[in-house]
Amino acid sequence: MSDLRTLRVALLGAGSVGSQVARILIEDRAELAARAGITLDLVGVAVRSLDSARDWDIPAELLTTDATALVQRADVVIELIGGIEPARTLILEAVAAGADVVTGNKALIAAHGPELFDAAARVGALISYEAAVAGAIPILRPLRESLAGDKINRILAIVNGSTNFILDRMDRFGDTMEQAQKTAFELGFLEADPTLDVDGYDAAQKAAILARLAFHADVPAEAVYREGIADITAEQIRDAAAAGATIKLLAIAERVTGEHGEGISTRVYPALIPKEHPLASVHGGNNAVFVEAAAAGPLMFYGAGAGGVQTASAVLGDLVSAARRHVAGGPGLTEGATAKLPLIPIGEVSARYQIALRVSDRPGVLAQIAGILAEAGVSVETVVQSAAEADEVSGEHAAMLVIGTHTSREDAVQNTVNALRSHEAVRAVISVLRFEGE
Amino acid sequence: MSDLRTLRVALLGAGSVGSQVARILIEDRAELAARAGITLDLVGVAVRSLDSARDWDIPAELLTTDATALVQRADVVIELIGGIEPARTLILEAVAAGADVVTGNKALIAAHGPELFDAAARVGALISYEAAVAGAIPILRPLRESLAGDKINRILAIVNGSTNFILDRMDRFGDTMEQAQKTAFELGFLEADPTLDVDGYDAAQKAAILARLAFHADVPAEAVYREGIADITAEQIRDAAAAGATIKLLAIAERVTGEHGEGISTRVYPALIPKEHPLASVHGGNNAVFVEAAAAGPLMFYGAGAGGVQTASAVLGDLVSAARRHVAGGPGLTEGATAKLPLIPIGEVSARYQIALRVSDRPGVLAQIAGILAEAGVSVETVVQSAAEADEVSGEHAAMLVIGTHTSREDAVQNTVNALRSHEAVRAVISVLRFEGE
Repeated sequence: MSDLRTLRVALLGAGSVGSQVARILIEDRAELAARAGITLDLVGVAVRSLDSARDWDIPAELLTTDATALVQRADVVIELIGGIEPARTLILEAVAAGADVVTGNKALIAAHGPELFDAAARVGALISYEAAVAGAIPILRPLRESLAGDKINRILAIVNGSTNFILDRMDRFGDTMEQAQKTAFELGFLEADPTLDVDGYDAAQKAAILARLAFHADVPAEAVYREGIADITAEQIRDAAAAGATIKLLAIAERVTGEHGEGISTRVYPALIPKEHPLASVHGGNNAVFVEAAAAGPLMFYGAGAGGVQTASAVLGDLVSAARRHVAGGPGLTEGATAKLPLIPIGEVSARYQIALRVSDRPGVLAQIAGILAEAGVSVETVVQSAAEADEVSGEHAAMLVIGTHTSREDAVQNTVNALRSHEAVRAVISVLRFEGE
Repeated sequence: MSDLRTLRVALLGAGSVGSQVARILIEDRAELAARAGITLDLVGVAVRSLDSARDWDIPAELLTTDATALVQRADVVIELIGGIEPARTLILEAVAAGADVVTGNKALIAAHGPELFDAAARVGALISYEAAVAGAIPILRPLRESLAGDKINRILAIVNGSTNFILDRMDRFGDTMEQAQKTAFELGFLEADPTLDVDGYDAAQKAAILARLAFHADVPAEAVYREGIADITAEQIRDAAAAGATIKLLAIAERVTGEHGEGISTRVYPALIPKEHPLASVHGGNNAVFVEAAAAGPLMFYGAGAGGVQTASAVLGDLVSAARRHVAGGPGLTEGATAKLPLIPIGEVSARYQIALRVSDRPGVLAQIAGILAEAGVSVETVVQSAAEADEVSGEHAAMLVIGTHTSREDAVQNTVNALRSHEAVRAVISVLRFEGE
C-alpha cells in the first residue's frame, strides 16, 4: 500500500472509455485530488498493443502490455477490458493483492458477480461497477444506498442505447427495421455484430445486475427471460401508436407473486409503453431507469447510456469513492446479505397483450378466434380489424386482426397463441407484445 | 453507544414525514435490520403535544415531549421538526453527544449548514439530509458521490412541487393564477401561507444546497437571486407556448464566467423551457433535477418532491447508510473541502429573454423601441405584434409586443427595460422572462 498522500491507480484497457478515464485522471489531477482527499496517481495503463490508435494519446511511458505485473503495484485497479477473461483473473489477482476494483464490465458482473464479491469481501476490498449499467447515469448507488430504507417493487429500464435508437427511429422517423439498423450502424450506435444488442443479451445482463441490487438476490443473466427486437416491424410500431403506445426494449426486474408465493421476475422484451409514460420520451441512444418503490413512489433516472467520456464519469465517481475510503478507512460498501427470493418463471407473470394476426377474411372467423381466446381464459378488451392484401398463392382475401387483451397470464396467452397458430383460418401470428408501465 | 446489534434511533417530530418514518421503522423492522446489518430500534419520538392526531398512530409509550432528553439516549437522531429553532440546538446537542443526524430540514441546512457540518466533523459524526431537496428523489448522494469524478457545469431543477403544480395547471388546463392557486390549496399542494413556495424562498434554499454539493462552495440562501411566480399570467403562458416553451419555476446553480473570472451563479425564477426539454414534461407536483456534467453530459433525476411517505424514503435511506457506518466503522461521508469559487451577481449572467410590452398603436413606435434595445446592446431575434384593447382612460389604441432577444447580459436587459418603462409610447412592461435549457 502506498503512503496516504497518493493512491496508485492502474488502468486495464484503453478503449473509448479507458482513454477518457486516462485523460481526465491526467488533465484534472488537481481537482480530483481535492475531491478525493488524496492524489490519484495513474501508474500504468495495460493495453494489448502499445501502438494502437486511441481516442486520446496516453503518455507512452504509462503504457504496458503486462497487465498482471501492473495490477501488483496498484491500490485501485480500473478494469475496462470487457468480456470474461482475462478480466476475471486480473480482478481476482487485484483483490488478492488487496486492491480495490472499479469495473464497467457488465458481462463479467452478471456472470461471475458472486465469485468476485466473495473474494473481495474475504480481504475487505471493494468492487464497484456503476459504469456497468446505464453508462453515465448514477443508478447503482441510489439503488444500493439512497433506497436502502425503501422496498423496491419494480424496475422498468431502457438500458440498451442501440436498440432504443433503432426503435426511436422507427417510431419517430418511420424507418423500417433495416433502415434504422443501417443508420444506427453508420452513427456508431451498433456494432458490426449487432447480436448482443438486438437480441437483448446486453439488456439481460443489466437486468440481472439491477435485480441483484434491487432485491438483494442472486439472479444469473441466463435466468432472465429474453426476446430481442429483430422482428419488430413498422406495422407493429403503427399498431402500438394506434393503442396510444410506443415500443421500447425494456429490462424488467419485478417483485411478483407466483404460484408458490412472492418472488422475482426478470425479463427483457420489446414492450408497449403508454405515450404519456416518462419512459416513452426517452429518445435516441439515451437510457433511463424507472423505479417504483413502496414509499418513494415512481422515480426516474435519465441520461447517456454509453459513450466513452460519459461512461468515464461513472468510472471516476467509483474511483473517487474508493479513494475517499482509503483516506478515511473503514470497509465501505459491501454487497449486503442475499435474500432468498425465488425466481418466478415468465409463465406465471401477467400483463395486457397486443396480439396481431393475419386471418382469412370470411364470415365467422372473428367468432372462432374469440372462442379460442375465451376458452383459454384470455379476455378480449379491444379488436381492430382491417383489410389485408390477398394471399399470393390462393388469391383468398385476408384480414388483419389486432387484439388487445385484458390482463392475462403469460402461459395462458402462449397456449392461446399456439392454438391460433394451428387454426386453419389463421394465416400467421404477426406479433405478440406485452404492455408495461400502465 | 449501544452494543453493535442495536442502533438506538430517536425521532424528533411526528408530522406527515415523521409519522411515516415511525411506521416504516416499526412495520419493516426485520427487513431494515437485514438491509442495515443492525437492528434499528426506535427508542422515542419527540412531539410538541402527546395527543395530537397523526397520519399513523405511534405507540403511546414511544412519545415524549422532552426532545433534549431523548437526544441523549440515541445513536442516530432523525430531525423532522423543521425551521431553525429548536432544530438547530437539538442537532448540535445530538452531535455533541456523538450521535449521527439525519434531517430533512432545508431551511436549517441552507442557513446553518457550515456550522452544523463543522460541529459534526469535529467529533466524527455524520449529518445527512437527502430529504431536504426534492423529497424522495435521490439527488444529493449522486451529486456528492456518483459525480465526484466529474465536473458539474449546471443544474436546472424543479424543486418546488406547489409552484410546479400551479404553473402546470395554467399551462395544461388553461387556469388563471388565481384558479390554479385555489386548486393547489384544495388538493393540499399549497400551504395556508403560500409565500414560501410562491415567492421562491423554498426553491432558493434548495438552490443553495444544490450549489454547495455541486460546486463544493458555501452559498448562503440569501445570496440566491430570486423571483417568484405570483405575477405569471395566462397571457404569459400563451406567449411562452407561442415561442415553443413552457414556464417552470427553476432553481439554477451554474458555473459561469463573470467579469472577474469563473464563479457560481445561483438563481430562482420562472423561466421559459423549450417544450422538448425533459424538464418541460415534469407535470403536477413532481420534482426533477437536470444536471449537466462535463463528462457525463445531461442527466435527469425525476420523482415525487414531497409527501409524507415519499420523503420518508429519503430519510430512511440516510438512516440505513448511517447504520451501516456504525456496523462497519469509519467516518463515512464528509462535506469535503470547500472551494473558493466566487458568487457571480445576476447582472453578469446571460440568457435569451422574452419581453412583453403594451405600447401605443401608432406609426413609428416599433422603430423607437427597437432603437432603445439596440442602444443597450440587446439584439432582437423575434417580434410578435398583436392588437390590444384600447386604453380605458384615453381611448387610445394599444398593441402588444412580444420581443425575443438574442443572448444578452442581464444588466443590459434590465437597463433596457428601465428605459422602456419611462418611454412615453410604452404603456406597461408586462413581463421579462428568461429562456433556460436551450
